[in-house]
Amino acid sequence: MKIQSKNLESIVQAFSDLPGIGQKSALRIAIHMLSQPREKIDYFISSLNSVSEIKRCIHCHNLSDGDICAICQDKSRNQSLICVVENIQDIMAIEETGQYRGGYHVLGGVISPIEGVGPEQLNIESLLDRVNKGLVNEIIMAISPTIDGETTVYYLSKMLKTSQVRISQIARGVAFGGELQYTDEITLGRSILARLPYAVNGND
Amino acid sequence: MKIQSKNLESIVQAFSDLPGIGQKSALRIAIHMLSQPREKIDYFISSLNSVSEIKRCIHCHNLSDGDICAICQDKSRNQSLICVVENIQDIMAIEETGQYRGGYHVLGGVISPIEGVGPEQLNIESLLDRVNKGLVNEIIMAISPTIDGETTVYYLSKMLKTSQVRISQIARGVAFGGELQYTDEITLGRSILARLPYAVNGND
Repeated sequence: MKIQSKNLESIVQAFSDLPGIGQKSALRIAIHMLSQPREKIDYFISSLNSVSEIKRCIHCHNLSDGDICAICQDKSRNQSLICVVENIQDIMAIEETGQYRGGYHVLGGVISPIEGVGPEQLNIESLLDRVNKGLVNEIIMAISPTIDGETTVYYLSKMLKTSQVRISQIARGVAFGGELQYTDEITLGRSILARLPYAVNGND
Repeated sequence: MKIQSKNLESIVQAFSDLPGIGQKSALRIAIHMLSQPREKIDYFISSLNSVSEIKRCIHCHNLSDGDICAICQDKSRNQSLICVVENIQDIMAIEETGQYRGGYHVLGGVISPIEGVGPEQLNIESLLDRVNKGLVNEIIMAISPTIDGETTVYYLSKMLKTSQVRISQIARGVAFGGELQYTDEITLGRSILARLPYAVNGND
């Protein structure tokens, strides 16, 4: 794109470097910015400046404004129950359900030989620390059901074998609201093998 | 979305206020920002700061770093030929073609009674000024072929009637590479009525 203003070009460049924003969207955003009052832009800039104030929770590696995140600080939650997730988006997704009142542990990814991610690059040591301190009763593995995810769960379960902690995994099967005929064969096949006794109120 | 960090929330909010960016994309961008080195963020912020340095060209209302834009300053261009467009994106689109070596005039929109845009809100006065100063030989109307666009072209042509300036309009018809059977009936019908004598090299 031919942009006559060098300043505008640098704004377009800055936005198009962001994930999911192409040249055209970046231009649209930049032109939108031009029409904004200066206070709006200053507010935007001050938000960006606060990036450096965002920390990682020393317990669970969730994002946090202080050393310990809001979830780890929450006394009303069962802190001896830990849900192991890949990233903070997963925490947000689980929190969104309103079904979980325990703690978390963010691995920061999954073991992936192809992408060169080994166990030592993930927050596994700190998870074992929490377990070894006797702070944990149960660990729920909420890891994506991919080959790398399965490998990671297997690795973690081996590392946790000697501890007294109970290990569980989130249920897998046909999605609610999904139609059987459109469910992929692996999911459908496994959901038959892993069938549960019927109860009127689900698992209650 | 439940975001535990207030700082992160404010970044997500700032990005999701931008056009075409939803909550999920904003979160993805914010998390991407967290992984960036501080210099990258500072560069982003300094780009944004330069918003206030972007001006409007005093002649054609194109965006510019100085008082007069690069196109109006370019002596190799035919400054007596003016292409009237709605917005600066249209200038970029026309520049992209490499087919035009004249000047521009950005109206800043089209006359739209429904959206409450009258001629006085558009840069029409300054266009008439340029014409009255005898600086213009021909005006090309490159306005979207919509009802509001047609109204605007009609209004402009009436305002320019007393001047000696030639008025033309960009060609409309079947798009290059388009298939006739998929062309809408209005475009196809008009392209038959407005047929041109066949020439081996187009209009040459």
